[in-house]
Amino acid sequence: MRVSRLMLVTLRDIPADAEITSHQLLLRGGFIRRVTSGIYAYMPLMWKVLKKITAIVQQEMDSAGSLQTLLPQLHPAELWEKSGRWQGYTAGEGIMFHLKDRQGRELGLGPTHEEIITNLAGEILHSYKQLPVCLYQIQTKFRDEIRPRFGLMRSREFIMKDAYSFHSNESDLKSTYQRMDNAYKTIFSRCGIDTVAVDADSGAIGGAASQEFMVTAEAGEDLILISPDGSYAANQEKAVSIPSPHEPLPEGDPIEFNTQNQGSIESLCLENELLPSQIIKVILMIVQIENGEIQPLILSLRGDQDLNEIKLANVLSSLLKKDVLDIQPITSEKLKSEGLQEWPFGSIGPDLNDNLLEKAKSWNKQFLRLADHTAASLEYFVCGANKKNSHRNFVNWKLIGGIPLTFDIRQAKEGEASITDKSQKLKSCRGIEIGHIFQLGTKYSESLDANFTNESGKQEPFWMGCYGIGISRLAQAAVEQNHDNAGICWPISIAPFEVIIVIANMQVKEQKDLGEKLYLKLKQANVDVLLDDREERAGVKFKDADLIGIPWRVVVGRDATSGKVELIKRNKRETELLNIETAIRKLKSEIMTNDG
Amino acid sequence: MRVSRLMLVTLRDIPADAEITSHQLLLRGGFIRRVTSGIYAYMPLMWKVLKKITAIVQQEMDSAGSLQTLLPQLHPAELWEKSGRWQGYTAGEGIMFHLKDRQGRELGLGPTHEEIITNLAGEILHSYKQLPVCLYQIQTKFRDEIRPRFGLMRSREFIMKDAYSFHSNESDLKSTYQRMDNAYKTIFSRCGIDTVAVDADSGAIGGAASQEFMVTAEAGEDLILISPDGSYAANQEKAVSIPSPHEPLPEGDPIEFNTQNQGSIESLCLENELLPSQIIKVILMIVQIENGEIQPLILSLRGDQDLNEIKLANVLSSLLKKDVLDIQPITSEKLKSEGLQEWPFGSIGPDLNDNLLEKAKSWNKQFLRLADHTAASLEYFVCGANKKNSHRNFVNWKLIGGIPLTFDIRQAKEGEASITDKSQKLKSCRGIEIGHIFQLGTKYSESLDANFTNESGKQEPFWMGCYGIGISRLAQAAVEQNHDNAGICWPISIAPFEVIIVIANMQVKEQKDLGEKLYLKLKQANVDVLLDDREERAGVKFKDADLIGIPWRVVVGRDATSGKVELIKRNKRETELLNIETAIRKLKSEIMTNDG
Repeated sequence: MRVSRLMLVTLRDIPADAEITSHQLLLRGGFIRRVTSGIYAYMPLMWKVLKKITAIVQQEMDSAGSLQTLLPQLHPAELWEKSGRWQGYTAGEGIMFHLKDRQGRELGLGPTHEEIITNLAGEILHSYKQLPVCLYQIQTKFRDEIRPRFGLMRSREFIMKDAYSFHSNESDLKSTYQRMDNAYKTIFSRCGIDTVAVDADSGAIGGAASQEFMVTAEAGEDLILISPDGSYAANQEKAVSIPSPHEPLPEGDPIEFNTQNQGSIESLCLENELLPSQIIKVILMIVQIENGEIQPLILSLRGDQDLNEIKLANVLSSLLKKDVLDIQPITSEKLKSEGLQEWPFGSIGPDLNDNLLEKAKSWNKQFLRLADHTAASLEYFVCGANKKNSHRNFVNWKLIGGIPLTFDIRQAKEGEASITDKSQKLKSCRGIEIGHIFQLGTKYSESLDANFTNESGKQEPFWMGCYGIGISRLAQAAVEQNHDNAGICWPISIAPFEVIIVIANMQVKEQKDLGEKLYLKLKQANVDVLLDDREERAGVKFKDADLIGIPWRVVVGRDATSGKVELIKRNKRETELLNIETAIRKLKSEIMTNDG
Repeated sequence: MRVSRLMLVTLRDIPADAEITSHQLLLRGGFIRRVTSGIYAYMPLMWKVLKKITAIVQQEMDSAGSLQTLLPQLHPAELWEKSGRWQGYTAGEGIMFHLKDRQGRELGLGPTHEEIITNLAGEILHSYKQLPVCLYQIQTKFRDEIRPRFGLMRSREFIMKDAYSFHSNESDLKSTYQRMDNAYKTIFSRCGIDTVAVDADSGAIGGAASQEFMVTAEAGEDLILISPDGSYAANQEKAVSIPSPHEPLPEGDPIEFNTQNQGSIESLCLENELLPSQIIKVILMIVQIENGEIQPLILSLRGDQDLNEIKLANVLSSLLKKDVLDIQPITSEKLKSEGLQEWPFGSIGPDLNDNLLEKAKSWNKQFLRLADHTAASLEYFVCGANKKNSHRNFVNWKLIGGIPLTFDIRQAKEGEASITDKSQKLKSCRGIEIGHIFQLGTKYSESLDANFTNESGKQEPFWMGCYGIGISRLAQAAVEQNHDNAGICWPISIAPFEVIIVIANMQVKEQKDLGEKLYLKLKQANVDVLLDDREERAGVKFKDADLIGIPWRVVVGRDATSGKVELIKRNKRETELLNIETAIRKLKSEIMTNDG
């Protein structure tokens, strides 16, 4: 390919609306163009990157025994109603674009394909003998994001590889899940990016176990906790750890004391010579449950701990056996609109009386009381006295009605000990999620009546797994991880071209001829080569070559007369002056090594 | 690939909702599954076919100098409003699915991409020096069809290759158009299908010249007229021909005669010893114009000719210089709702008086009078007398107010002479449109303000072409053209596999071993081979192999003990008993010949 035919238009200035480096570089290099909020056109250079990533993904999915397919993007509402996700995905969070066709039938634009594939599998697969089966597709998906941003990182149209597996039992699911885990590691390593696999929350997709694959990068939206020995890694949403020990409170007789102007844990500690780990922090929340109930919560945490809302939501779902639609703090405004009197915020203890709820219009009339393990295990502690400006010291759980239901609902943090090895202190880093694998279990097959006949002749719902890779996000994450001040440094396996030949001065016949000769020879050797044959100054061409990030650059300049060219490795900036035959030999061997 | 791992489920019965053979065979062979009206999942076998077609299309588009890209599927309404197509594509015919996002902004689901690409080109391309450029993409498109049917032939989601070219002048556009014409012929021939290129109407896409590529097949929705020498071929929508000569009426004095119960041309001829070509047939229509006007029409055709409504619509658009939204016949009901008295239908002549329109509520008050050339060129003729049960004989145009505006608005028909050579009588056949190329001219660049600086430094709108191939429709058309009673006969270049090995009896070790050995050897030779290793009766496997249409079948049966296999060519049903080495050699050479 010749740059003169590539429709390449690069920008020198940083586009105003691009916040992170990879987004800026993709716009500046002419890889993508914004069409409207969160919606981009992939220009020819970008398409080449996406095609290379896609080819790697296909090869590895195929060799993991997965069959490629293509499912519709328009989904009939009925299937999503059957799985129980239509409301949440349209009216609720509203992440699914949806429309009515000319017959007035509702259709959603697929953000994910569990419903479609499970329904199909139920129609096609009838016997355990046909199992296991794993199907995948590579396709544009849609999400009506609340806040589209960061280019391809959080866009409203994006390319995904999604795979779904069907099994006759859980252990077969687990073995495919393991095979996918391995395939994913191979895929990311072949793409030339560093990733870390972390335990993750399963979120709206659901299921038993799930693991995310993160590209580590400063601009990542996720926080990851890792033990230095690599034995533990998890998304903070899901992470567990050994909490730091608390400072025991001396035994003593329960006593109330005045705490005016001591509404925060800090001020309480400062004024009374206490430590946060000696205090029970109470958090009041209100939960919307899918059956319409509204449940007030009292959460008890140790004063030095923070609430993890995702853990809380999961605890509540499994405790109530119902989906949780929304969790919000209880505020004075909320009390008012429920027709309730003000509560003594800042001085509330775990034993706040249920009779405060008596006159609530729509709330349940009893608190659900939960504690984090760190709070439940305190023998003596300080806590609010449920009276304005008043706390209690030397309290124990017996005194205040016993220990509530206890769970892990706290945020794990950097510096805490790993559960895999106490001596390992967790470190934190930021990551970009580019892959996610799930053991779904029978959640979708049950709701969609997708059954098979097992070995004993009985009907049973499929065991299912699902496995996603964000193809377009991966491409941008690769840039976030591989760039310098001058531009992108594509890993060679996903670079739009492997080599760029820059003819320094098109007016000099020797340079032009040698450049063309080299171009032809590299093409013949199956090297993916780009020739910058533009009538531009050498400086402009070098800047563009740096910006678009082709791994190898060959400059045909002054030394062309003696048959020599300059070979430059983009990421290391190493330069060698070689005669053309040596340059070709070196490029072929470097590129072959990578392919193998 | 092994059939046991392919999730292959074939059907013996013809699915009730499939009207045409190709649709039935694709369903029965497990290639596609219906998800909802007009929306299908492409199963693994089908995906392999689509991938092979796609690869051929990509290779030929690339070598025609086109750059691959991927444009969004969600289109902002603003761009379609700018081009003037939003109304027609949503409210009017309503062929475009559309929705509102969470911000309430309207988006359409792309049925075609002129708006998006023209807008992008206007942003990126500024100078004639950057031209020409041709971009293409392969992507799922959407149409909210009024009547989705025939499987992938008229579906609501379908895969298209669409390309768009940008030029600094018309002659450059024409040369790219010619290059695309050639590329298309290569693509279809490499896909192993017979096509005919025909002159076509440009329809809603617009532009100067356009050509369709048709797969000839009985089930086709289009009627094509072809001259036997191949010098002329056109879609009937657009076709022209030399009309059969008329039988001249003897000269005579104008006379009125009673024609009670002679409302049709046939009865008029029968009762009065006339021929249809001696009569002027008058058609009354009412046209909705985009500016809101409603214009009544009087059309005069020779009695043996039929109206071509598409030609009429094109004539009206260019005459009125406005888009025509709808054309309907004038009926008694329409007159009533306009508040008009009944007209003498069945006896109307070209000179029906304008004062009949005087009291119309919303119609224009003057008829627009048009004639077809065949009517205008009659010297004397019979026509209605504008009184109930009354016609006139020996009329000429002078007597009735002169010849109206004259155009070609008649339907060309089988048996008429070709305009390329009078001695050639046109034949008709049915076709499936799988490709369409257009010279768009400056229609979109003007409306979307997409300009470049020409050689004299002036701003000028791009000259544009656009070029489509229906990838999924092509796949089904190939089946419609290549099948027999037992199933599909895929052309080898787009077959899901090139060879299927059927092990007749999996219980016989020699058969199983030889089958596996052959499978391995063919795979090593890069043959795309499928192994039927299922524990099924040989008959079942043969039936499935016929149904799914793999071009070469190798049966490993009784002769396996002597190292011999049966080689069968699917479409010809030729069978040879060969030793395994000869079979491999023959397959390799047959398949290589095809690839080259």
